[in-house]
This record gives sequence, C-alpha cells and structure tokens, in this order.
Amino acid sequence: MERLLVVGGDAGGMTAASHARRRVGVDELEIVAFERGDFSSYSACGIPYFVGGEVTDIDDLIARSPEEHRRNGIDVQMRTEVIAIDLGARTITVRDLDSSVDRIEPFDKLVIATGSSPTRPPLPRIDAPGIHGVQTLGDGVALSDDLARLDTSSARAVVVGAGYVGLELAEALHRRGLKVTVIESGEQPMATLDPDMGTLVAGAIRELGIDLRTRTEVDAFETGADGRISAVVAGTSTFAADVVVLGLGSTPEVALARAAGIEIGPTGGIATDPHMATSAERVWAAGDCVQCHHRVLGRPVTIALGTHANKQGIVAGENATGGDRTFAGVIGTAVTKICEYEVARTGLNEAEARKGGFDFSTSTVEPTSRAGYYPGAEKITVKIVVERTTNRLLGAQIVGKEGAAKRIDVLATAIWNDMTVDEITQLDLGYAPPFSPLWDPVQVAARKSTHQA
Amino acid sequence: MERLLVVGGDAGGMTAASHARRRVGVDELEIVAFERGDFSSYSACGIPYFVGGEVTDIDDLIARSPEEHRRNGIDVQMRTEVIAIDLGARTITVRDLDSSVDRIEPFDKLVIATGSSPTRPPLPRIDAPGIHGVQTLGDGVALSDDLARLDTSSARAVVVGAGYVGLELAEALHRRGLKVTVIESGEQPMATLDPDMGTLVAGAIRELGIDLRTRTEVDAFETGADGRISAVVAGTSTFAADVVVLGLGSTPEVALARAAGIEIGPTGGIATDPHMATSAERVWAAGDCVQCHHRVLGRPVTIALGTHANKQGIVAGENATGGDRTFAGVIGTAVTKICEYEVARTGLNEAEARKGGFDFSTSTVEPTSRAGYYPGAEKITVKIVVERTTNRLLGAQIVGKEGAAKRIDVLATAIWNDMTVDEITQLDLGYAPPFSPLWDPVQVAARKSTHQA
Repeated sequence: MERLLVVGGDAGGMTAASHARRRVGVDELEIVAFERGDFSSYSACGIPYFVGGEVTDIDDLIARSPEEHRRNGIDVQMRTEVIAIDLGARTITVRDLDSSVDRIEPFDKLVIATGSSPTRPPLPRIDAPGIHGVQTLGDGVALSDDLARLDTSSARAVVVGAGYVGLELAEALHRRGLKVTVIESGEQPMATLDPDMGTLVAGAIRELGIDLRTRTEVDAFETGADGRISAVVAGTSTFAADVVVLGLGSTPEVALARAAGIEIGPTGGIATDPHMATSAERVWAAGDCVQCHHRVLGRPVTIALGTHANKQGIVAGENATGGDRTFAGVIGTAVTKICEYEVARTGLNEAEARKGGFDFSTSTVEPTSRAGYYPGAEKITVKIVVERTTNRLLGAQIVGKEGAAKRIDVLATAIWNDMTVDEITQLDLGYAPPFSPLWDPVQVAARKSTHQA
Repeated sequence: MERLLVVGGDAGGMTAASHARRRVGVDELEIVAFERGDFSSYSACGIPYFVGGEVTDIDDLIARSPEEHRRNGIDVQMRTEVIAIDLGARTITVRDLDSSVDRIEPFDKLVIATGSSPTRPPLPRIDAPGIHGVQTLGDGVALSDDLARLDTSSARAVVVGAGYVGLELAEALHRRGLKVTVIESGEQPMATLDPDMGTLVAGAIRELGIDLRTRTEVDAFETGADGRISAVVAGTSTFAADVVVLGLGSTPEVALARAAGIEIGPTGGIATDPHMATSAERVWAAGDCVQCHHRVLGRPVTIALGTHANKQGIVAGENATGGDRTFAGVIGTAVTKICEYEVARTGLNEAEARKGGFDFSTSTVEPTSRAGYYPGAEKITVKIVVERTTNRLLGAQIVGKEGAAKRIDVLATAIWNDMTVDEITQLDLGYAPPFSPLWDPVQVAARKSTHQA
C-alpha cells in the first residue's frame, strides 16, 4: 500500500492529510502525520483569547483532536519529531520525543508542513523562566499556567513587539489585570500598516492604559535571585516585568527541508509552484513554511496565516493523491481587534508599493461607519493606495470600531480582480442606515481618489 | 446663459444638480431644481428610525437643505410641481403649490428625477385618516405626528406588506410600544429572498412579538364614527387598527415623462442608456423613475434605492454638462436590519434565476459568524445560487445577527467580477477569531458548492 507522510500536525499538514484521505480510501493509501508538539489542528490565532480569558477551555481551540483524525483514517503520531528526510531513499527519520528513540519511515509521497519559528533575538537571558513565545498552543498553555502563579492584579507584563500577535497578547494581559508595557522598535505599532494608520492604533492602545514605547529596542533581560525574569532593559530604560511575551513575528521553519536539499526561495520559505509542489519529486509543502505568490507584487512572499495554510493544505493534499488543484496566491489581507478597535489591511501599503516600484497615490477618508444620524455611528478611517498609471487599487488599510475591519474583504476582492477605483465607486454594495452611510466607506475612499467627492 | 432644469429635489435630482454645478460655474450655467414636497435631499431610508425614535430630529435626515443648495449655486424651488414638459419648445410648466399659479420655464438641458410612487391598492377607504404611506420625509413626519396623538402603549398598528420598508416600520412601531400586526400576501416576508430564507426572517419577526400573517390579502379598511381607520379586513379576519402603514413597494413615477413623449421601458421605468440619457435629446433621467441595466440578468430593471439614485445622478449631472460618464448597472444588492437580525441579498434569487433561464444549483450553509470558540459567535445562514454550466456565482442571500449583512458586499463584488465559486474559495479574506471562522461564511458557502467541504 502507498504511504503519504505528513511532517507537521497543524493547519497546513492536517488539511493536506484530510483532503488526501477524502480522495483515496484507507485500503489504498496509508496516511501518517508526525507532530512534535502536544496538540494537532488547533487555532493558534485563538491563543490571545485563551490567555485573556474569553476562551476558558483550551480544547475549544482544537479543531480536531488526534483521535478524531485517527477515526477519519489518518494516523497522527504526537510528540514525534521528523529529524531528517532522505529524498533518494524516500524515507524520513522520526524521533519519539518521550523515549528519544529514532526510527526510519518510508514514504511514497511527502507533505512538509513544518510551520514557522518565533523570532527570538540572541539577547542576554532570553531563555529565562517567565519569558514566553506564543507560537504554539503549548506556548499559550505555558503562559496561561505562568499567569495562574502570579497575582495578576499587581503583576507587570512586558510585551516585546507590537505586531498583531503582540498587541492581541497585550490586550489579553491587560484584560487579565496586569500592568502592561509594549516595546516596539518601529516608529508605530503594526508595521504592516503605514505609519499614519499605525498612529491610530497607537492611540487606541494607549487609550486602554497600555504603556506603548515605540522606537525602542530591547537590549537585555534581567533576572531575579530565583533566575526568573525581573526586568526588560531597553537603552537607558528598565521595565520591571513579572512576565514577558515575545511577539516578534516568525520565520519559516525550513531547516529540515534545506538539509534534505529541497530548494528554499529567496524569501526564506520553501519554494513551491502553484501546485504546492517543491523542487523535489513527490514532495509538496504547505503553510507557514512555504513562500507563495503575491498577486499584486508579482513575486513570492512568506506570510504565516492559518487561512493560507488551509488553502495550501487542500492543494497539497489533493495533488499528492493525483489531483490537479492550484493555489491562487495571496494579497496580504489581515485583520485584528484591539478592544473596541478594529484594524485591517490588504494589498500593498505605501512602503511595499514603493519597494515594488509602483507609481502610486494615496487617499485617506474618515466617514462614519453607519449613517451619520444612526445611533452608534463612529468614525472609520480608510486609506487606499492606487496605481497612478492605471487607477488600479493596490492596497487598503482600515482602522475603526465595530463593523470596520471586515470591510477590507470588499477591497481585497476588488484587488483580487484588478479593479480600478472608478470601478469600485460603481459597485452595488449594500446600504441601510444601521450598516453604512449611503456610500460605503470603502467607496468614499475610492471616490476621493477619483476626485468624485 | 444656459439653463439646466431638474425635476425632483431628492437623491437623483440634487446629486445631478450638484455634480453639474461642480463642472460648470454659476456665470455659465443656471441650475434650477423643482421639488413638489417640503424637503430636499433627504434620507428616505432613515424614516423608520425617525418613526421608531432612534433619530429624534427630522433635520438629521436631511443631507442638504434648500438653503445649502442655494449657497452652492443651485436654485431649489420647494413646493413647486412640474406639471408638463414640452420637448419641442424646450420648456416645462411648473405650478406653485401654495398659490396654484402656473408658469413656464425654458430649459437647455433637463434632468428628470421624479422618483417613485408608493403602491396604493384601490381598496375601500384606503384614504382614511390614520392610513400612512412612508415614501417621503413628509409621510414620515405625518406618521410620527399621528403617533404622538395616540397612546402608543395600548395602540394597535397594522403594517400592510412585509418587504424591507414594511418590516422596518413594523419594528419601529413595535419599538414605540404599539401592538403590531404585519399582513403579507406572499408565502414569506421579503419577497426578494427565497422562501427558505424568508422563513428565517419570519421567525425573527415573530420572536419580537410581532403578529405576522402571511398568505393574507387585505380586502378593505374600516373606519370609526370619526372617519378614522379602525380596522383592516383581510378575508374573514378583521384586525383592529389605530394606525396603518402601507409598505407595498413603489412604482416609477413616469406620468410626466410619458406625457411628454419620452420613452418608457418595458419595466415601467423611463428608458435610459448607460449615459442616463433618455429617448429625448437634452433630457437625462436618474433615480427611482428610471429603468437601468441589471448586470446578471442582462436586461433592464427598476429598483428604487438611494445608492443607485446617487450614482445615476452623478452620471446625469456630468453628462448634462458635457461630461462623459456611464452608469455600470445594478445587481440587486439590498440589506436591512430587523432588531438584532440582519438580512442581505445580492444578484439573483432562485425565482429570478429560473425566470432568467439560468441552469443553476444552490448551496446553503450555517456556520458561525465568528470563530466558534469566540464569545458572541452566532449562527449565520448563507445561501448562494450558482450557474451550473460555468460555476459562476449568480446570487446570494444572508440571514444572521451582528456582522452578517455586510458580508453580502464580498459576494456582490464577486458577482460584479463574474467570479466562479472556486475562485471565491481562493479569495484572501480577512480572518481573526472575533470576526469570522477560519473560512469566512461566504467562502464556506462557496466551498460547499464546489464540494470542497
């Protein structure tokens, strides 16, 4: 019987396994997935809400347990790390992390879904107890357990990095009652936004009572007599800390693929074609570990996001079982919520457009989220980036309150279809006073860009 | 100096006037708009919220007063009805409704924006005091004034017609404390939804405590000794009523244009080309009174909606002053909110697809509005209509709670771009647990249709 092996038991890998299983029955194909951690198929995006207390049961974040996968005909081996791939012999070496026993597993088809590794700068004492990454569900549990040992009403937390994950965790810790400081090296939080839009996020964060320090670099960590984190040193400032969360982003985990001789792309992700095939025959890849096509930039990028991992997993799983599906690429859509503020972006921001060599203009508008007279109407800021020569929408950013973020989907769909701003003004979008002004805010931005308004 | 005359002072007409004025200065073109009512440039969509009490000042519903228009160089003559158009002489006859004096006004260019008339079936005593239409802001004020004379805590209201306006008014009256009955001739409320989706709306309405009677035809109205409405008779049932609201839709107001010899289309609206030009030279039209191109059906339709009126007004105003802009058509997007329920539709429903001769399938899904584990996640029902031969999305309907309705915009944008359901599954839409499950509900529907899920 043929064997499909899957390296990594989270979104990309298990989606590939599941879609492979749907195409080929258990009597024709054996499917085994190897996961070095304690959890499979979970929502890493849900970690901040577990830490913050909105989600009380960690099991709620698990989409499908190993047992459920097994019932579906997929063998999932937990706490089992793949430590080598031999393309010539078509085998992998796996290590049982509890017994430390290695063994060889042969494969006919292989899907690599090794995910990404959190960035951990080589700073003094960065491995001290009380300093947490938040990449895996295990990390989330460890942080939550650690908080349970603290008096959260008086404890001080420092979050390093003000990207999506950093800010979501900052809010979670704030919600738990900790006094929170966020340290960010950049000019503004959320580097995927332009600084003018990031400023709005900074205001929202500070409004919460979170101490946000931008243009600040962490130099070292200090520990107490017990060896546990006691402070974060940044230049001449020292921030007392009972707990530290690292939210510095992640890089594709490609060591295994590289060692096997599989091509790594210029972005640092595993090079894949639209079929999610790697440079090696019979080997596909999916999820945070790959680079994939950015439709606006026209070149590969790496973006660690569950939505992409799922879509790529479907493609890898189907093609590994004789299917013919392609992944259509990404455009960099992302949304987040910080207390009552919603933040969204898609396509290219100014810096990306500049770097991509585009000749562009921008328009920023501040209409209301609902008809101005309707209760609860709030200011919503929409900024768009437009190619000057074609009037094509290149990117958009939104900051606002309730109902703001998911409006980005309209602009993402517009970018996906190469729409011009003039075409966007013509779109037949839904209007009723509780939901939007007569012109939806995304169209208000497009109208400004076309000088209609 | 040239003269541009505008018949009708609401969305279509005043948008045309404003955009004409932006192109041509006051020393080159005189612009005069005639409005038979007491209000100009108002939000008719806001009437239910004024009646319901969420909006307390009627002026809040007025986007721009006659005085503001005059300051912008547009003469607006209120309570002045245009009673005839003479295309040969290039004049119109206008009547001052207060003095009943008629006069002739010459024009070089004319924009017709006469709006639509509420449907008033010729039933016994339909003109009795206490029976209200809700077409104009004046109607809204009259209804509100009438309610002020009633003891709303014990009064009974009957709403005839369970379309968008009827249901919005039913909620408003319910909110004011009245005991509300809604009488609808159709199988389900909201005839622009399929019956299976309309059933969800019916449930929501009844959950509020509103007495919804479907498949019920009104036969007559009864009046009391004072001549005022006292009851609504429908078959063998009689519903006591202290106030009645007619929400039976509207038809384009084209009598003036027809009498002038301007072509009326098969739908009953004024025939227009993409430039919003009518069959008569130098005459354009915009708003509820016109028929316009439906992009999916490929034929003209009439849809009374402020968003279309505004877009068409821009086109008419620019072209009447030498511009060259076109109206790209409509796809039938509409949204509404009934208490906490949100309802949306775009493109074709089953009946429309069938009538349009399409070979189609449907898929209905009921995922959650947010990640299942995130607080406040609620069921959202998404139904899509897909062309069988091409897999192109033809239409969509959504019923749910917070965050449901405006998701229709993504599908409207997809239909606008002729996207297939497979392409929709690939879209890079925003994901974060507070906003959506990993696959947005609109993609869940598309996935079901492609048999991916």
